[in-house]
Amino acid sequence: MTAEVASTDPRTGQVVETVAHEFTPAEVDARCRTAAAAAAALDAAGPAGRARMLRAMADELEADADAIVALADRESALGSSRLRGELARSSFQLRLFAGVLDDGGYLGVIIDHADPDAAPVPRPDLRRMLAPLGPVAVFGASNFPLAFSVPGGDTASALAAGCPVIVKAHPAHPATAQRCAQVLRAGAAAADISADVLASARPDPIPFYGELGSLNPVVVTAAAAAERADEIAAGLLASYTNGVGQFCTKPGLVFVPAGASGRRIRDGLASGTRDYNPTAMLAERIRDSYRAGADQRAMLPGVDVLAESAAPDGTGFLAPARLLGVPAHVLRDDAVRTTLFDECFGPLMVVVAYTDDAQLAELLAQLPGSLTASVHAGAGETPAAHLDVLRQRAGRIVWNGYPTGVAVTWATQHGGPYPSTTDSRSTSVGATAIERWLRPIAYQSTPDAMLPLALQEANPWRLPRRVDGVLEMP
Amino acid sequence: MTAEVASTDPRTGQVVETVAHEFTPAEVDARCRTAAAAAAALDAAGPAGRARMLRAMADELEADADAIVALADRESALGSSRLRGELARSSFQLRLFAGVLDDGGYLGVIIDHADPDAAPVPRPDLRRMLAPLGPVAVFGASNFPLAFSVPGGDTASALAAGCPVIVKAHPAHPATAQRCAQVLRAGAAAADISADVLASARPDPIPFYGELGSLNPVVVTAAAAAERADEIAAGLLASYTNGVGQFCTKPGLVFVPAGASGRRIRDGLASGTRDYNPTAMLAERIRDSYRAGADQRAMLPGVDVLAESAAPDGTGFLAPARLLGVPAHVLRDDAVRTTLFDECFGPLMVVVAYTDDAQLAELLAQLPGSLTASVHAGAGETPAAHLDVLRQRAGRIVWNGYPTGVAVTWATQHGGPYPSTTDSRSTSVGATAIERWLRPIAYQSTPDAMLPLALQEANPWRLPRRVDGVLEMP
Repeated sequence: MTAEVASTDPRTGQVVETVAHEFTPAEVDARCRTAAAAAAALDAAGPAGRARMLRAMADELEADADAIVALADRESALGSSRLRGELARSSFQLRLFAGVLDDGGYLGVIIDHADPDAAPVPRPDLRRMLAPLGPVAVFGASNFPLAFSVPGGDTASALAAGCPVIVKAHPAHPATAQRCAQVLRAGAAAADISADVLASARPDPIPFYGELGSLNPVVVTAAAAAERADEIAAGLLASYTNGVGQFCTKPGLVFVPAGASGRRIRDGLASGTRDYNPTAMLAERIRDSYRAGADQRAMLPGVDVLAESAAPDGTGFLAPARLLGVPAHVLRDDAVRTTLFDECFGPLMVVVAYTDDAQLAELLAQLPGSLTASVHAGAGETPAAHLDVLRQRAGRIVWNGYPTGVAVTWATQHGGPYPSTTDSRSTSVGATAIERWLRPIAYQSTPDAMLPLALQEANPWRLPRRVDGVLEMP
Repeated sequence: MTAEVASTDPRTGQVVETVAHEFTPAEVDARCRTAAAAAAALDAAGPAGRARMLRAMADELEADADAIVALADRESALGSSRLRGELARSSFQLRLFAGVLDDGGYLGVIIDHADPDAAPVPRPDLRRMLAPLGPVAVFGASNFPLAFSVPGGDTASALAAGCPVIVKAHPAHPATAQRCAQVLRAGAAAADISADVLASARPDPIPFYGELGSLNPVVVTAAAAAERADEIAAGLLASYTNGVGQFCTKPGLVFVPAGASGRRIRDGLASGTRDYNPTAMLAERIRDSYRAGADQRAMLPGVDVLAESAAPDGTGFLAPARLLGVPAHVLRDDAVRTTLFDECFGPLMVVVAYTDDAQLAELLAQLPGSLTASVHAGAGETPAAHLDVLRQRAGRIVWNGYPTGVAVTWATQHGGPYPSTTDSRSTSVGATAIERWLRPIAYQSTPDAMLPLALQEANPWRLPRRVDGVLEMP
């Protein structure tokens, strides 16, 4: 017998129901084979058919929104307002990738006509496009039961690319995952595509690499602190406690000037932190890991606990927020700096007080790779040197803003340098997320009728293409 | 004391001179730090300055062509005609990437303007572009002393991207590597860019993954064999013995029909193979490894040696060509199939005789990933099913042609599915080779003056960009 999968309510810590059972390796293997066999159906549908499928999935998701949100709230304690937003984002993402398919630019079509007079040697007809990589395994995230789980951006971009998807549901929300899978499969069927393009599984069939932790540093210049101390304190407080600090873009470290205006930011943050209401984290293991990380950091030499919210009673997986403070010079100690420059997942932020720009620059140069880096500057101020260092260490630069709240657009970049992601060349959010699932293929001297439609001379799909070295619009 | 590096003549097997010495880890480290520090100079030069540098490097390479070709021939035995072609290809590649920089499309600029009315949530101004990854280590190839070594496509594309390059010279041609490094560094200096953007080193400082071996299967349909047996035999002979079989695109396996016209192809190949003149391979280790692989395959049960060229005398690193034959049904044996479906680097080809399309399809479905797959079809024939299988297993489909001779163009794709390359999403040949060295970075709500030029609203570099979801030409 394999283990049953329990659906637990984080607000009470109690098991509400059991949802099916963990799959055996043989069951996972069978699901993967079924999904792989469905690749032909995705290919045959073409970009237009897959766009129809994604839109049908978005429709089904919205039609079942009430039930999905209720289930996800019971399993995650994230609240129905946040989860309604996540569902809206998920259906938006499905439709965004339908738009990416309508556009066709993602195929990266490049055509070089044969040229017998080419230097240094004659060249054959060569046509290049991106082709789907094959079945994609998506591992659901604990902290996004919808937008980075079964109906999330990974699933949407992989299906758009033409890759069947096998989702490994996160154990913190198995019932939500199961219901979402049923809904998406209904969407595929509604678009006359095999529901097997989406399979769900429960154990880990292969090693998994991905996002490893992100500090998301924030720099507040002296001018910005002097101009907007209260506004910045309020913004940082909201960003670091948002969703109980359970975002990969949570600001974990903020540099503020050591003087009076920096102190005003620290005081504002401390006061807000003390007033914070303990809220349930996603799962017991995550809460325990947060507690251990927060305690380890508080006990470092030279680190002060600036504020802590009221201790929660023993119910469920509640966690208090904690604000730490440290003078910049203490970070010269390698052990202290290494620990404070490492992500602590949950509602914790470290405030570093720097005395001058040279000291700040020295610390910025030692920051690890992050998903984001934010700069708050004074009116008209142009801290180009700080920006130059930060762009080496982040995938997204945020100006006078806060890193949480990732827009889902064409220009979004979510991946950053190691250790924030294992491949800084990829993004899991935004239209270019589709590029992770594609590989180039070139056809040499092949008759037009034998070419994929995307590469045929007449451009039946009206794609933007590079022809003989020149980018052409349809 | 560290080991000296010997420059050996493969035609005689004798050491001609010693070239400097193997670098110690500390020396490699110092070179890497110097190269990393030169990144700022490449960035400051911008695409226009880097294009000037690449063109100056091409000029210097051509000005020193006679001396470089003489050295490379002495160290590789590839012949001055082939090496002159390789030098022309190398300078062409440097200029191709200058053109890629002129074009600017490689930056992949995407701009989404702020939209307070966006659904499901308001969106900030977001601008995305590709940024250089940082210093790139290039490992010179044994079989391309110029085009995949110091002045090769990896160096050209990495420098174009803005990444300093550290080349680990191949021990088979250290003197060529040293001279080419001097020439390219002179090119950088001529364009007023630090010569430190190109460093050379000798030992292996880090593990290296890359191209692991490619079978490059060729399918000859019954109709093609009936129409063009002699032409196909001559083409395959030239392709598999080209450069002593020392190309990653060498056709290692060809499927021919079992009847009379297939036999005519086999006989033509056998006759040509017997007439082949033994030629020196690049290095002793490569020759020994070829001999062992060829003998292992010849001794497999059911495999016939169809022809072998005259045995070489004991001079230098000469190797005979060998043609093997096997009926398709023998490949049902897992051990035989696994060995014959594995690359044997050198002048060896396996001819598989198939009795019908079903038997051929069964074998095609078992092929490993390759850089290329070629199909020879009869006039008007459309073997779509074969093409559908082969495109899953190759990075480049060649129609009625031979896989050796890779055109350097925009549409070229050289990487293929595993095991032919470790990352099928990349290419080491052609304009898109630059994409390996870039990662995306996004700027959110950042004032125009603080943005990189590539992302500024006025588009000062006149780049093709995607703005608010729509691809725009400058």
